[in-house]
Amino acid sequence: MIAPGFTGGTLDRADALRHDEAGLAALTSDWRSRLLRLDGFDPVLMGDGTLGWTTLADVPEGAELVLLGLDEAGRGHFAAYIPGMRAPPGRSPRLFGLLGQFAPGEAATYAAARSVLDWHSRHQYCANCGTQTALFRAGWGRRCPNCKAEHFPRVDPVVIMIAEHDGRALLGRQPAFPPGRYSALAGFLEPGESIEEAVAREIMEEAGVRVRDVRYIASQPWPFPSSLMVACVGMAENDTITLDTNELEDAIWVSREDVRTVLAGGDGPFLPPPAYAIAFTLLTAWAETE
Amino acid sequence: MIAPGFTGGTLDRADALRHDEAGLAALTSDWRSRLLRLDGFDPVLMGDGTLGWTTLADVPEGAELVLLGLDEAGRGHFAAYIPGMRAPPGRSPRLFGLLGQFAPGEAATYAAARSVLDWHSRHQYCANCGTQTALFRAGWGRRCPNCKAEHFPRVDPVVIMIAEHDGRALLGRQPAFPPGRYSALAGFLEPGESIEEAVAREIMEEAGVRVRDVRYIASQPWPFPSSLMVACVGMAENDTITLDTNELEDAIWVSREDVRTVLAGGDGPFLPPPAYAIAFTLLTAWAETE
Repeated sequence: MIAPGFTGGTLDRADALRHDEAGLAALTSDWRSRLLRLDGFDPVLMGDGTLGWTTLADVPEGAELVLLGLDEAGRGHFAAYIPGMRAPPGRSPRLFGLLGQFAPGEAATYAAARSVLDWHSRHQYCANCGTQTALFRAGWGRRCPNCKAEHFPRVDPVVIMIAEHDGRALLGRQPAFPPGRYSALAGFLEPGESIEEAVAREIMEEAGVRVRDVRYIASQPWPFPSSLMVACVGMAENDTITLDTNELEDAIWVSREDVRTVLAGGDGPFLPPPAYAIAFTLLTAWAETE
Repeated sequence: MIAPGFTGGTLDRADALRHDEAGLAALTSDWRSRLLRLDGFDPVLMGDGTLGWTTLADVPEGAELVLLGLDEAGRGHFAAYIPGMRAPPGRSPRLFGLLGQFAPGEAATYAAARSVLDWHSRHQYCANCGTQTALFRAGWGRRCPNCKAEHFPRVDPVVIMIAEHDGRALLGRQPAFPPGRYSALAGFLEPGESIEEAVAREIMEEAGVRVRDVRYIASQPWPFPSSLMVACVGMAENDTITLDTNELEDAIWVSREDVRTVLAGGDGPFLPPPAYAIAFTLLTAWAETE
């Protein structure tokens, strides 16, 4: 299977260092330590698709550091949370262009940094008592000075799936998609359900199709802002679509041959998702099986 | 595969009703609607292991309603969030006793209710600006009257896994476990990593064992307070354990024969996890494969 987008990061997250004040202080005073270059929340990419880095000398006044991890040489890699920074709503066409240009593994490092910085930007206050919180654990949490509650970055599981019936896959089209694009259905997993149950519920809600025998295919982080995409295939009991038009503009059944053709760049009944999206991985895996 | 604990719920979550004020009002004024009986955050079980329900006439003063879903007869099923309710830290032996007594599917309904009520109890304030928020979407979210931020119940993905080497499985023992208990290793998935990457990182951190070829086995909700347990098996490169004694008290390699024996209630080198924990499902699935 092709590696899903935003996976393959090479930094060691060094969890133990997050709890080790002396070790962390040694890293932040080490001239070899590196600071991730960002343009707001967007990555700064070198010509070869690697992430841009600078030194801790460039940490802005008032910023706080998030330890992303260590490289093989033991160098600390950090991102800076700058108070007041805020990701724009939606994603710019420029960002989408950059997502296709990452060298292998680099998008994973960016995904971790973006998700955690975005979380800090929207979680400055204690959800339990309303007091302003402070960063702790080298940026992998915030603590309330009043009620002592500890808060950790969110990871929101999202199921993304195709229903299969008679050798064809169900794809849907959201109104915001580029013209011609169809992709796997998707939705947030809710408290009190398994991955398999969320898959069945979402396909029923969005397309009115009942599935059984849900099988897991792959997963990826999706840092807009903090999803874990869990890709699955479910076997549909029939192919009658009842569309929820609040969610989808259209839904179609496509053959393996069609999927293979459009993934290879040929003309077909739809334009496929981009290679960094796990829907691409999912469709590729499905098209390769019989 | 045996169904994981806390799965198999029979209520239709009726997502569309959460956005439908008139439909929701009709349900809350319908004398057939049911209110989940709870003892604090613990379930109230009937003799046959089904959940106890009462009518909306028993909603306490000042409480807010969470729509759990509809049954096949279209009756609304609700849980009441009572301001100030707070789950005790840790889980009582009494609660653990009850968890083994649920009729099939009933624990899933309880899991959804418990996770969402617990979330409300700890998220009364806006993480973005510190203002007190208000329940919306029939209890499946909170909204800030000041900054308009919308907040949704957390689901925290946790990877739980065994490493396999030469036909044996790696199990660990946390200090808080009952005497003799060993189980799969586990840890929270972090922003910026896939399920497979989190599995490899956690086994390396806790036991110093490197794994590859991680495969997904099953998932379950775990409502203490809001985890999604994702069970996997990874193939270990070697069997040398380097224990992180901050996380584990001990770790051992056990054979399929040993696992089969203890799961069947026989004497063996460890006491297994309870049947409602996905570690039980995982060990059962692993012991049945060759």
